[in-house]
Amino acid sequence: MSGNTFGKLFTVTSFGESHGLALGCIIDGCPPGLELSEADLQEDLDRRKPGTSRHTTQRREADEVRILSGVFEGKTTGTPIGLVIENTDQRSKDYSKIATQFRPAHADYTYMHKYGVRDYRGGGRSSARETAMRVAAGAVARKYLEKRLGIRVRGYLSQLGPIKAEKFDWDQVHQNPFFCPDADKVPEMEAYMDALRKEGNSIGARINVVADGVPPGLGEPIFDRLDADLAHALMSINAVKGVEIGAGFESVIQKGTEHRDELTPEGFLSNNAGGVLGGISSGQPIVASIALKPTSSLRLPGRSIDVDGNPVEVITTGRHDPCVGIRATPIAEAMMAIVLLDHYLRHRGQNGDVEVTTPNIGQR
Amino acid sequence: MSGNTFGKLFTVTSFGESHGLALGCIIDGCPPGLELSEADLQEDLDRRKPGTSRHTTQRREADEVRILSGVFEGKTTGTPIGLVIENTDQRSKDYSKIATQFRPAHADYTYMHKYGVRDYRGGGRSSARETAMRVAAGAVARKYLEKRLGIRVRGYLSQLGPIKAEKFDWDQVHQNPFFCPDADKVPEMEAYMDALRKEGNSIGARINVVADGVPPGLGEPIFDRLDADLAHALMSINAVKGVEIGAGFESVIQKGTEHRDELTPEGFLSNNAGGVLGGISSGQPIVASIALKPTSSLRLPGRSIDVDGNPVEVITTGRHDPCVGIRATPIAEAMMAIVLLDHYLRHRGQNGDVEVTTPNIGQR
Amino acid sequence: MSGNTFGKLFTVTSFGESHGLALGCIIDGCPPGLELSEADLQEDLDRRKPGTSRHTTQRREADEVRILSGVFEGKTTGTPIGLVIENTDQRSKDYSKIATQFRPAHADYTYMHKYGVRDYRGGGRSSARETAMRVAAGAVARKYLEKRLGIRVRGYLSQLGPIKAEKFDWDQVHQNPFFCPDADKVPEMEAYMDALRKEGNSIGARINVVADGVPPGLGEPIFDRLDADLAHALMSINAVKGVEIGAGFESVIQKGTEHRDELTPEGFLSNNAGGVLGGISSGQPIVASIALKPTSSLRLPGRSIDVDGNPVEVITTGRHDPCVGIRATPIAEAMMAIVLLDHYLRHRGQNGDVEVTTPNIGQR
Amino acid sequence: MSGNTFGKLFTVTSFGESHGLALGCIIDGCPPGLELSEADLQEDLDRRKPGTSRHTTQRREADEVRILSGVFEGKTTGTPIGLVIENTDQRSKDYSKIATQFRPAHADYTYMHKYGVRDYRGGGRSSARETAMRVAAGAVARKYLEKRLGIRVRGYLSQLGPIKAEKFDWDQVHQNPFFCPDADKVPEMEAYMDALRKEGNSIGARINVVADGVPPGLGEPIFDRLDADLAHALMSINAVKGVEIGAGFESVIQKGTEHRDELTPEGFLSNNAGGVLGGISSGQPIVASIALKPTSSLRLPGRSIDVDGNPVEVITTGRHDPCVGIRATPIAEAMMAIVLLDHYLRHRGQNGDVEVTTPNIGQR
Repeated sequence: MSGNTFGKLFTVTSFGESHGLALGCIIDGCPPGLELSEADLQEDLDRRKPGTSRHTTQRREADEVRILSGVFEGKTTGTPIGLVIENTDQRSKDYSKIATQFRPAHADYTYMHKYGVRDYRGGGRSSARETAMRVAAGAVARKYLEKRLGIRVRGYLSQLGPIKAEKFDWDQVHQNPFFCPDADKVPEMEAYMDALRKEGNSIGARINVVADGVPPGLGEPIFDRLDADLAHALMSINAVKGVEIGAGFESVIQKGTEHRDELTPEGFLSNNAGGVLGGISSGQPIVASIALKPTSSLRLPGRSIDVDGNPVEVITTGRHDPCVGIRATPIAEAMMAIVLLDHYLRHRGQNGDVEVTTPNIGQR
Repeated sequence: MSGNTFGKLFTVTSFGESHGLALGCIIDGCPPGLELSEADLQEDLDRRKPGTSRHTTQRREADEVRILSGVFEGKTTGTPIGLVIENTDQRSKDYSKIATQFRPAHADYTYMHKYGVRDYRGGGRSSARETAMRVAAGAVARKYLEKRLGIRVRGYLSQLGPIKAEKFDWDQVHQNPFFCPDADKVPEMEAYMDALRKEGNSIGARINVVADGVPPGLGEPIFDRLDADLAHALMSINAVKGVEIGAGFESVIQKGTEHRDELTPEGFLSNNAGGVLGGISSGQPIVASIALKPTSSLRLPGRSIDVDGNPVEVITTGRHDPCVGIRATPIAEAMMAIVLLDHYLRHRGQNGDVEVTTPNIGQR
Repeated sequence: MSGNTFGKLFTVTSFGESHGLALGCIIDGCPPGLELSEADLQEDLDRRKPGTSRHTTQRREADEVRILSGVFEGKTTGTPIGLVIENTDQRSKDYSKIATQFRPAHADYTYMHKYGVRDYRGGGRSSARETAMRVAAGAVARKYLEKRLGIRVRGYLSQLGPIKAEKFDWDQVHQNPFFCPDADKVPEMEAYMDALRKEGNSIGARINVVADGVPPGLGEPIFDRLDADLAHALMSINAVKGVEIGAGFESVIQKGTEHRDELTPEGFLSNNAGGVLGGISSGQPIVASIALKPTSSLRLPGRSIDVDGNPVEVITTGRHDPCVGIRATPIAEAMMAIVLLDHYLRHRGQNGDVEVTTPNIGQR
Repeated sequence: MSGNTFGKLFTVTSFGESHGLALGCIIDGCPPGLELSEADLQEDLDRRKPGTSRHTTQRREADEVRILSGVFEGKTTGTPIGLVIENTDQRSKDYSKIATQFRPAHADYTYMHKYGVRDYRGGGRSSARETAMRVAAGAVARKYLEKRLGIRVRGYLSQLGPIKAEKFDWDQVHQNPFFCPDADKVPEMEAYMDALRKEGNSIGARINVVADGVPPGLGEPIFDRLDADLAHALMSINAVKGVEIGAGFESVIQKGTEHRDELTPEGFLSNNAGGVLGGISSGQPIVASIALKPTSSLRLPGRSIDVDGNPVEVITTGRHDPCVGIRATPIAEAMMAIVLLDHYLRHRGQNGDVEVTTPNIGQR
């Protein structure tokens, strides 16, 4: 109930603060028999890791994950998988000033009001550092989806501040530090980020995530529709302020004849639905898009108050991402993968022996 | 796990199909001692009810709710509140054609793939008729929030297809059939809807929902952030394709200095956050916005397939809303109210005796 | 969280007070395609119904159940099944005295302390009348278990106060009003009950429940072991004060060589485990036993207090069961059936595609 | 859903196998502001630790717990508390024989049938070693209950095989290796255990657990009664085969006049209810009793089968407790403490602002 668990059958429960001893999570409900090693998780963790280009924070996080349980002789056993990442870059730092000041657009003000105490060290539990465990857990889900079900979950950055990707090539996504599918826009993005860094400011971004190969039938009416759970999962990522499925906000100005995806024996003719009808997967690709706000940790001064309510001017020093969206692609992929595997298992629980004779026309 | 329950401490579990005997729900966890009568629920149900203007479906639904339990001598007892609405308008109808056809953009195709059976009568469980119980349950939450906590949840239509509300007046919202806060745009909306009806087409809409008076501290890190649970709740409403909190997708192009809401002893200077920081309420108004797709039930023919995979042309006769967004405002209010009360109780459970000395500057 | 829902994948959420308008429940997660009618539920309800012999309360409860949703053309659809039983025997009664008195060993004192209000009409929510919905929901589970999985859940009364059943014949269980498997003891039980009724007193009982045909592998370590969930389910029945699995309290004085059930290629050689090893079904019959306390509603006066703390003498008039255990067999069966189906679906969710090559030797 | 989480508001999720790298758990929902250090947990862990007398296994488990998160400056922050215990005594051992044999009364047969794989190293996840994390988590709950609510949870061994404690003195419980409250029976128990060890056999035991100071009002009708959740919690402990609340199975032969606990302005006159009426605490001490079966790991040979279904004779070598009940007292206390804190928070969530004017007469 205290919100550190996600999922119903495939569940991830996490712990850890940005400047504590370690981060960790417990994955419960993973099907047995899946080949799994630390290297499987490390690959995704490394994609999220900061400091791999000049456009992300230069903070060093080793992010080396250890599997403490649930895997025996290289395969999952069906029992809970305990994961831990030790925090190695705990610089001793003078927190005397920040300890009494609320930083604009940060969670320190709200955590204080919730718990009556606060952990002022670098964001504590509200730090984006927490997302490392999402990526690690998501890697397990991704592997099951790919190996057992042929489902592939992939994301990319579709917009960096004012710069939109216009061409699309999956192969480009991992060829640049932005996860941008449009190679032509990369130089523009690099210049934009260099200027931004110089200015000391930050910027928002948009990430798209797509799952191919999802069979029809996943998702639970009424409240746990697949899109509702995706919205939950994606909005729970730090800095996300909006979630769209398929046509999203574009559907506000669409007419019914335009929006509805017609069906033919060869498949659907469009995908405004984003692969979800009535909360249940249709067999088409699942398509989601999220908005990430600009980082609020800036060296440009901002007005704020201290714990006694006095006005103060806050400057955030330290190493921060000028665009959190840049590193968000693996996190969004992880959350979508967790939702899909969870729903696959839930579907199998209730409907495991159902025979469907109607043709599946989703993928074309 | 089968998705017909929402909430953790204040929970709503619903049942019922559009053309079955009745709809109903069980509200569990409602605090005792709240004055509650059927009239309290009926008021909100009537705001959602179709047929109150020419712009919504002319289908008659009495929507008379009965409280079967959980209330004694006019007050809630703390035990589950059973609600039921009998379906009175079950026209006998010839389903012989529709029974074997999948309607474009409807859930019949996906339900068939999920369960191997389908209830072809008017959408069955996937019908928007189900939202009546959300409104009824939401009315209970709204009453507690208002009477006990001084929290007010209100919504309005901010855009109808291409027509955006530009002026804002809460008093106007209930003066027109659209829940539009801009009286000047109402004639334009009426003309638009008349033309649309003549054309036989449908259109999307955007609804905003705002909660005033929310104390700081509600929301659970990490996965059950207040905004994540709101996104879940709102995306679970039929036809919703996008959810924004605060600045939403606008934050993609905002710089950090622009987005961050500065604090002064007199309060926050802006509300790009939409009242949520780090997933926890800040004391500012909670602001959400949703996109609703156009209805897919059209008398304009569309290509589709039947259960055997043969191509068919589908025409949907019957009485349907040309813009489901028009009646969606009370539903969105209901879902936000349920989320807020649930989080209030969850917060009280864990932190009930916490004393917070820091000033609350949210509302100004 | 407020405790009116049982189960994780096959869930039952109930509402209703003994003297309210109706009782009801929502079954969520029932697999689709199961043939189901009201008659299927009524059969079990009638076994529980009072007034079928002189040894139970003469209160008339029609207990006619209606299925409001979730069944279409005679089969479950996979969507929630809404059930309701109208309360028809709501005698108008003078509650003026009882309204301010706490009855010894009743829940009115504790409900008052929990909720600050109380529903003094005949026990309200704490009345055993609530168990009717357990039986109705359990009948759905029993049918699925029998028809799809070949699992049969049956119970019997093994002890009525000091009188123990000594012979065992399943065929006798439904030939007498006590669910007693030992025909020879029935006259003794009848005489005992007649004397007890004359005395105005009540007595406890012991019920055993057995499930045959359960495949090995059901149950979830660590906290949701099959036996732990059974203990939860059975202890949640009104008046139950003890639960045993297999050898139960007898195992306190057993040596390891005596208790351990040895295995041979032909099967287990004993069943001290009661069909559960490490919290997981072994393939042997699941065996549970419960203790039910004597009814506390007596016409023999008892010392108590009123709501102001003054001493009072309480006499409970009205129609009460002198031995609640007599009607408890169908309730215990229902709860075991719900647990088994829930665990079957949970097991299928996580492990649906697991192949087990080891021989299953459980049933012999 | 996979059963490695206990609790609803105060939740414990655990991981770890007996011979893996580490055991761990995440406590979510702990109220903030509680003073907490590793020493608080270690005290209870040391009471459970083996090898402290000749009557328990001589296996060395350091059982040193580390707090990885959720505590800052000596106090809980309200965020999840990550705990870990490294496994230090992982003897390399020849498993070649045991790897293909099922041990009688062990979980290896059922785990194999559940997951299709098994971790044959010393019981894997089904080992009682897992209970260390229950004790660690329980210590957190115990501290909150004691410091904030004045609730004390204490247990003792009431019977060791045929030897029953007859006198009762809380002060004696920690003066002997059996947690026995009757000093006079200790020599008899020692002699019994010495003979048993020589024989190579094992024996069952009975443990009682009592909570004093519990306010009236805790527990949720209908399915999550306080006694039902206690039965769940206690039955989930390794080797437990029976649970009683208050008079337990004794109530089968009690008459109503004997069982019902009468009330006077000075308090209840007896406690057959064990402190729970209608599933809700009455203010009297909560009293539970559990049966623990004898260990099945014996060096006396037993018949069994191997993974191919062939008959084998199994001898279990290694270091095992001849009476698991001896070390079970701290585990049972831990589980009761977790249930009570969980229910306290759940109660506070729903009913936090309820005023009760009726006198509380429970404790006398």
